[in-house]
Amino acid sequence: MAEQQANFADRLSEAIEAKGAAVCVGIDPQYDRLPPAMKAHGEADEPARLAKIAEFCWQVLQVVAPHTPAVKPQSAYFEAYGAPGVETYFQVVRWAHELGLLVIGDAKRNDIGATAEAYAAGHLAGPDRPDCLTVNGYFGRDGLQPFLDVCAAQGKGVFVLVRTSNPSAGQVQDFADATGKKLYQHVADMVAELGNGDGLVGRGGLSSVGAVVGATWPQEAAELRTRMPRQFILVPGYGAQGGTAADCAASFRPDGTGAIVNASRSVLYAHKDKQYAGLDWKQAVEAAAKAFAADIASAVKKPK
Amino acid sequence: MAEQQANFADRLSEAIEAKGAAVCVGIDPQYDRLPPAMKAHGEADEPARLAKIAEFCWQVLQVVAPHTPAVKPQSAYFEAYGAPGVETYFQVVRWAHELGLLVIGDAKRNDIGATAEAYAAGHLAGPDRPDCLTVNGYFGRDGLQPFLDVCAAQGKGVFVLVRTSNPSAGQVQDFADATGKKLYQHVADMVAELGNGDGLVGRGGLSSVGAVVGATWPQEAAELRTRMPRQFILVPGYGAQGGTAADCAASFRPDGTGAIVNASRSVLYAHKDKQYAGLDWKQAVEAAAKAFAADIASAVKKPK
Repeated sequence: MAEQQANFADRLSEAIEAKGAAVCVGIDPQYDRLPPAMKAHGEADEPARLAKIAEFCWQVLQVVAPHTPAVKPQSAYFEAYGAPGVETYFQVVRWAHELGLLVIGDAKRNDIGATAEAYAAGHLAGPDRPDCLTVNGYFGRDGLQPFLDVCAAQGKGVFVLVRTSNPSAGQVQDFADATGKKLYQHVADMVAELGNGDGLVGRGGLSSVGAVVGATWPQEAAELRTRMPRQFILVPGYGAQGGTAADCAASFRPDGTGAIVNASRSVLYAHKDKQYAGLDWKQAVEAAAKAFAADIASAVKKPK
Repeated sequence: MAEQQANFADRLSEAIEAKGAAVCVGIDPQYDRLPPAMKAHGEADEPARLAKIAEFCWQVLQVVAPHTPAVKPQSAYFEAYGAPGVETYFQVVRWAHELGLLVIGDAKRNDIGATAEAYAAGHLAGPDRPDCLTVNGYFGRDGLQPFLDVCAAQGKGVFVLVRTSNPSAGQVQDFADATGKKLYQHVADMVAELGNGDGLVGRGGLSSVGAVVGATWPQEAAELRTRMPRQFILVPGYGAQGGTAADCAASFRPDGTGAIVNASRSVLYAHKDKQYAGLDWKQAVEAAAKAFAADIASAVKKPK
């Protein structure tokens, strides 16, 4: 079960180097947004919609695999279909692995002690599960430790929510202490400290305990980059949410390493983008994935 | 689908009054803890363990149904078994409903916009889903609104994590501003405000937007009770985690309403408790559920 494999941060760094782009395609399947060619004829019941979603995911994975080191399936869009949707989620994880992709499971799990252990068992441990998982740190250290134990033992990773990309992120995350330090900075310090734990730092100096920092907050991102020197930073919010490549660049280390930028809707639903009119939907996805990778690569210093 | 039913806070208050106890039994099935009579003979593979867990849950639900208004299945222990485990989770929800129980889905979901909508669709909307759901408020208002929309439209509820019961809760939640106000109090204020939204406050004056406040922090609980006058408070941490009935009493309103106390392990695994030696495991569960309800009832003023 608990196969020994290299540190997750090293695996992710190598995959980025091999593909030449620090990007991740988010797999956020929403039936209503699917290309017309991928929808069922007429009214589709829930199982029919889910079958089309599975087919769409498989096609997208094949199209983007040459251009991205990682994909990030969003658990919520699968959980919307109940247990059969969860089965499809783990099928997507297996398909991505078969295509040589790293998988960031976006499930934002959080709980205490034995319950967090159960989430780690279901969402992170073992070869059939994602290579890493997004988690929420509201419980503090003992809510995160069970995930970190799996990271250290099995070469897996986590990305802890630090600064999220949504408009109201600041309502909770900007809560500040007497010195002006904000909650998200306090959480960042906790993540940096936890990330130095036994068995978590890879050969390349980065930790398997990473952080989520939205592209929509580039000033905060620049400060967080220095606050969390060893953290891999997962950057959501590029594209449809408004973040630019230059905004994303703030999350990379000066040598061009240490971050990975996610795009979901702007790639998956590229058939709706006027600049790809005339292409079939798969060609549009491929063109958008390549343009996304090139855009990020051009904004970030090339490592080494 | 979206059946009109009464406000969730009213439904919960009525269920508590009907059963005479503001208690909830947590359904946290861990195979290794099951009563010997409920385990498989010899080595059990994952499907065999899950089948035993399902049977255990069904038996427990039947035993506790006369004594508790609500149950709280913990999603993590089902998700540990992948998609088949999630199927069992929703089976438990349906069984509980058949037995006339309200269901608090303990899944602590959290995300932004359309993604939070997908979680709300999968975990809260519709008659086959729980009556309410635990959620994490780190994203601020726009991460919670999709859940609240379902609450208002369908008579469902949420419990937002405010002060969790685990030892390291304070590491993040005690982060304080210049006035000494702590993060959990800031989150409590957000919850109180959101809970006044359209369609959320019931006839009894309580909101469908409740809060989680651990029994292990009675001083904080007393202050939070006044800070969130309309919130139903879900109190974990009684029993196995060390919280007493007197600790839990701090979360009730002066009139004895407005809170519900959860116990999981101390009821489910009562067969291991010396005071129930000599009883078979179901008799032990029933005795523990009755003792739990009596303990809480004795510490809390009887409503009206």
